[in-house]
Amino acid sequence: MAKINDSFSKLAAGYLFPEIARRTNAFLSENPDANIMKLGIGNTTEALPPTLVKAMKNKLDLLSNRETYSGYGDEQGDTPLREALVNYYRNYGVELDASEFFVSDGAKADAANIQQLFSKDNIVAFQDPAYPVYVDSNVIGGRTPGYSKELQGYENFVYLPCREENGFIPEIPNQKVDLIYLCSPNNPTGAVMTHKQLKEFVDYANENKAVIIFDSAYCEYIKDDSLPRSIYEVEGAKSCAIEINSLSKTAGFTGVRLGWTIVPKALVCQDSEEGVINSMWNRRQCTFFNGASNVAQAGGLGALSKQGLIESRALVDYYLDNAEIIKEGLESLGLVCYGGGNSPYIWAKTPNNMTSWEFFDFLLKECHVVITPGSGFGPAGEGFVRISSYGHKENVIKAMNSIKENFKNVK
Amino acid sequence: MAKINDSFSKLAAGYLFPEIARRTNAFLSENPDANIMKLGIGNTTEALPPTLVKAMKNKLDLLSNRETYSGYGDEQGDTPLREALVNYYRNYGVELDASEFFVSDGAKADAANIQQLFSKDNIVAFQDPAYPVYVDSNVIGGRTPGYSKELQGYENFVYLPCREENGFIPEIPNQKVDLIYLCSPNNPTGAVMTHKQLKEFVDYANENKAVIIFDSAYCEYIKDDSLPRSIYEVEGAKSCAIEINSLSKTAGFTGVRLGWTIVPKALVCQDSEEGVINSMWNRRQCTFFNGASNVAQAGGLGALSKQGLIESRALVDYYLDNAEIIKEGLESLGLVCYGGGNSPYIWAKTPNNMTSWEFFDFLLKECHVVITPGSGFGPAGEGFVRISSYGHKENVIKAMNSIKENFKNVK
Repeated sequence: MAKINDSFSKLAAGYLFPEIARRTNAFLSENPDANIMKLGIGNTTEALPPTLVKAMKNKLDLLSNRETYSGYGDEQGDTPLREALVNYYRNYGVELDASEFFVSDGAKADAANIQQLFSKDNIVAFQDPAYPVYVDSNVIGGRTPGYSKELQGYENFVYLPCREENGFIPEIPNQKVDLIYLCSPNNPTGAVMTHKQLKEFVDYANENKAVIIFDSAYCEYIKDDSLPRSIYEVEGAKSCAIEINSLSKTAGFTGVRLGWTIVPKALVCQDSEEGVINSMWNRRQCTFFNGASNVAQAGGLGALSKQGLIESRALVDYYLDNAEIIKEGLESLGLVCYGGGNSPYIWAKTPNNMTSWEFFDFLLKECHVVITPGSGFGPAGEGFVRISSYGHKENVIKAMNSIKENFKNVK
Repeated sequence: MAKINDSFSKLAAGYLFPEIARRTNAFLSENPDANIMKLGIGNTTEALPPTLVKAMKNKLDLLSNRETYSGYGDEQGDTPLREALVNYYRNYGVELDASEFFVSDGAKADAANIQQLFSKDNIVAFQDPAYPVYVDSNVIGGRTPGYSKELQGYENFVYLPCREENGFIPEIPNQKVDLIYLCSPNNPTGAVMTHKQLKEFVDYANENKAVIIFDSAYCEYIKDDSLPRSIYEVEGAKSCAIEINSLSKTAGFTGVRLGWTIVPKALVCQDSEEGVINSMWNRRQCTFFNGASNVAQAGGLGALSKQGLIESRALVDYYLDNAEIIKEGLESLGLVCYGGGNSPYIWAKTPNNMTSWEFFDFLLKECHVVITPGSGFGPAGEGFVRISSYGHKENVIKAMNSIKENFKNVK
C-alpha cells in the first residue's frame, strides 16, 4: 500500500502566485469589463533581444540538418556556454572553472533542488521576507515538523527578519545554523548587500562550516559598481557558498528558461572535503536532469556575447526606469518606499497600518492594479507590498495614474 | 555545521553512460585514429521534422515582438499543448482531462522526481534490467540502507527479473510492494507488454493500493496495434498508475527537451483520496519547476499536429528500420537477439558466456563500435548488451559490417 510523502501536507498555504491569480480572477468574473494592470509577478514583458533570437534560430537551422543535428547534450550544459559563463564572471573579477558551472532550465528549479544535497537534520536560515521557493522546498524536503501559527512560521526554521530597522539586511544568526539562503539584490525588498555585509555572512559560514545558498538572479540590476554582483567577489566565499543565477530577468528568458548554479570545488561542509559537494551536484544533475534545452542554451550563448550583453542591459535599464516611475509615483502619495535603484522591485509600506492583503485588495478593487502582498514572502513582509517594474512603460504609467486617482478612497 | 545527504554515498556506481564515455575516451586517447561508431546511448541523430522547426521559429518571432511576447507560462504547461495531449490520447481510446497532464522538460526529470511524492517507507519494485534513473533516484530518495554485493542490488528494493525464461516480461511480485516501475516498450530489452500482462499488474496494484509508474517514452515505436501504447488503455489503470512520456525519441527532442506526466485525478493510494496525488504533483511542479521552455512547447504543439505526427512517425520508422538491420546482422553471426520490431533497441545475448562489459570492450576495441553493457541496467542484464538503433543508416550499416568482419576474433 503506497503511502504519500506527508511533508507536502505541512505546507501552510498554496503557493503565493496562484492565490493572487485566484483573487484576480474572482474579481474579474464579477467585473468583466475591468482593465486589470499587472505589477505583481516579476514577469518580463519586453521583446527578446534580436541577438538572442538570431542565435536560437541559427540553432534550429543546425537541428534541421542531419549533418549538424545534435541530440542529448551534457547534463552540465554545453562547454562553450560554460566557458562563456567563466568569462562573464571574470569581468566581475571572479575566477571560476567551467566544471564549477551547472547550466539548468532556470534558477527556480535549482533553488528548490539544492537542499536535496543536504541532510534533513540541517538547521536552515532564511531571509524574511524571501522568495517562497526556499522555504517551501525545505518543507517538502522534510526539515520541519510543521507550521506554527504562534511562531507565524515553520518550526525549526530560522527566520532572519529584514525590516526597516536593519535596512532590510539580515543580521548574523544568533544561533548555529547550517544552511543560509540569501538573495541580493533581494526579492522582494530590493535591498542590496554590500561587500562588508556579505563578508560577515561568509565569515560566519566559514567559522561554522555552514553553507550559503546565494541567489543572484537580479545581479544585472546593480548599477552601483561598489556593490557585489557575485558572492565570490567576497574573499572566502568559495569554501562556503553556492551561487544560483538566471537569464530570466536579464535577457527576458522567463519563458525560454535558462539558469545556472555554481558549486565551487573549494566548497566544504562538516562531513565533506573539497570537491565532494561539486561531485554530488554533478551526480544529482546527471540523475534528475537531462540538460537545458539546446535552443535555450544557444540563446544563452548569444546573451553572453558582447552584443547580447549590450541588448540585455538595455532591457534591464528599461525596467529600472519603470521602477523609478513607480517609486516616484508612490512617494508622491506619501507612501514610504524602498528598493528600486539597483533592483526591479519597489517595497512599499502599506498606508494606515493596513495588512498586505488588505492593501492588495484595495489596489485590485479600487485601482485595478495587481501587486504582490508582502506577507506572502514571510511574516516580516506583513505591512508591505512588492510592486514589480516588469511591464510596458505605458502600462506602468497608466497603473500609477490609476493609483494616484483612486488613492483618496484608501481607508 | 552543514551535513550532506548521505544517501548519495549509497549509490553503487557512477551513472552508466559517463562510464561508457570514460572507456571510449580512454580507448580513443590510445588510438586517436580509430573511427568509433556509436550505437550506445539512445541518442537521436536525424534532423528535426520541418513542421516542428517552423512552429519553434514562429514562437521566436512572437517573442521578438513586444505585443506578442510572453514570459512565464503555467508551470503545468500551456493550455493548447495540454489540450493537444488530450486529443493525442483520445486517438488511443484513452479519455483524460487536461488538468491531469503536466508538461515537463522531459521524461528523465519526471521519472526521477516522481518518487518525491511518496513516503520513504514504501517498498519499491523495479523491472530488472531497467533505465538506471528509477533505481538511482530512489537511492538518493533514501529508500535503501545501501548496496549489497551479495544481493547484487540494493537492500529493500524488489527486483523483478526480466529474462529469456519469461520473455523479458516481469512477473507479479510475490511480496507486497508499494511502488512499481514499468517501462513498455522496454528500455533496454525492447520487450512490449500485452494488454493481458499489463492488466495483471493493474489488478495487483488496485488490490494492494500500490502505484505503478509507467514509462511509455517509446510508445510510438509500437507498430502492432494489438499492443497497448498507454497504460490507461487497460481498465482500472487510472486509479493506480502514473504515466510518463516524452517527445525525445518520437520527434527528435532529446536536445530540445519536452515531456509530460499524467497523474489521473482518480489515482489513490493508502492514505490519499481521489485528487490528492494529482494536487501534490501540481504543488511539486509549482514549487520545483517553472514550466518547460516556451520554444520547446511550441515545437511540441507542432509535433502533435496532423502533419507533425506524420513527420515524427517517419523518423520512428527510420530508426525501426535501423533496428531491423542490426538484428539481422547480429543474427547472421549466430547471436541470439530480442527487441526491435516495436522498439528501437536490440537486446543481444553475449557470445561464449562473456560478461556484458567483456563484450562491450571487445566491440569497442576490435570493432570500434560502442554499445551499452546490459549489466549497467541491473543484475539481470548481465550477459546481454543493448544496441541502439539511433544512428545515421549508413553508419549503422558500417558498424554492422565492422562487427561482421571482426567477429571472428571473439574469444
